[in-house]
Amino acid sequence: MIDLYTWKTPNGRKVSIMLEEIGLPYEVRPIDFSKKAQFEPDFLAISPNNKIPAIVDRDGPNTIFESGAILTYLAEKTGRLLPTSGAARFEVLEWLHWQIGGLGPMLGQFAHFAVMSKEKVPPAIERFGTEVGRLLGVAERRLAAAAFLGGAEYSIADIAAYPWLLGASTMMRDALGEQISGKPALQEWMARIGERPAVQAGMKVPE
Amino acid sequence: MIDLYTWKTPNGRKVSIMLEEIGLPYEVRPIDFSKKAQFEPDFLAISPNNKIPAIVDRDGPNTIFESGAILTYLAEKTGRLLPTSGAARFEVLEWLHWQIGGLGPMLGQFAHFAVMSKEKVPPAIERFGTEVGRLLGVAERRLAAAAFLGGAEYSIADIAAYPWLLGASTMMRDALGEQISGKPALQEWMARIGERPAVQAGMKVPE
Repeated sequence: MIDLYTWKTPNGRKVSIMLEEIGLPYEVRPIDFSKKAQFEPDFLAISPNNKIPAIVDRDGPNTIFESGAILTYLAEKTGRLLPTSGAARFEVLEWLHWQIGGLGPMLGQFAHFAVMSKEKVPPAIERFGTEVGRLLGVAERRLAAAAFLGGAEYSIADIAAYPWLLGASTMMRDALGEQISGKPALQEWMARIGERPAVQAGMKVPE
Repeated sequence: MIDLYTWKTPNGRKVSIMLEEIGLPYEVRPIDFSKKAQFEPDFLAISPNNKIPAIVDRDGPNTIFESGAILTYLAEKTGRLLPTSGAARFEVLEWLHWQIGGLGPMLGQFAHFAVMSKEKVPPAIERFGTEVGRLLGVAERRLAAAAFLGGAEYSIADIAAYPWLLGASTMMRDALGEQISGKPALQEWMARIGERPAVQAGMKVPE
């Protein structure tokens, strides 16, 4: 049994999608940001960076924070969605890290400055909008050349990127009027990933 | 033999430190940002996100981009600096991802707005300065409780974080007048890691 500490964010949804895909039983522990639950001492003991998602695997016992580490843990625990060796393994890991270190942080900052912040800061909106646009172009080129982000097979790289690319396409449209319809490979991938029952179930967690 | 495509940045230095630590022979291929070499088609074929570092392992053959994926590849290739299983493995991976997804991007943006950008943007400087300060506090708490960032042993988590934490301490001092002398565990760790011959050699690449 896995306890999933999560909230309604792309990083949280990565892990609920993964748990749905691999079929491990889990209990959702909502960390309500509106109540600042991420700063409570009990949660800090599990997640020293005060962020969701985090998991406690009661069978380990293992406590793990950081979505990329959690996805890798669950993949290695079950032997699913991450090849165990060879070039295919590192193709998945490089696109996982591309999401963790690039797409996620840059889109998060774009969302802050263009959508959430009361004070609009044009140089920051421009900087992060340009970078998110560039990253969507990188995704389009990749998905025009490979069936999935991590290569020929569906993997944790797709799971990590899907909630963020979904948010990116919506935000770029609403904030900048830019459509992803000019990115057919990305659009087709988003539809294909979004149809998966585990993705649909995971995107609804926490209710 | 490994070809290392790199430049004088924290992300590049992670990989040269790692190669020095594990003693694999490598040749440095400088990607000179001042000549925009990262945008040349030959390099794009190796690094589809147009960023350094990237490696080509001629023995693989494997081409890998994203510093976190490269560190994991080199660790798994040699069986060094990342436990192969168990809780210790994921302790390393969670702190590796903390650097990749948090410390690196947030410090990178702080550096842009507080140091490199001609136009000073106070809301962005404040936002990223606060977040870097918070992340340094997370590092201090961690290093007060563990000998190394990834746990009891030196690992790729330390290698990933060192060039960034070195930059963070310098920039916070220069831009905000804040000293890390109030963070004794972090300060002691930085001195201890900085004394390693492989770290000293790796930090000088490319010359």
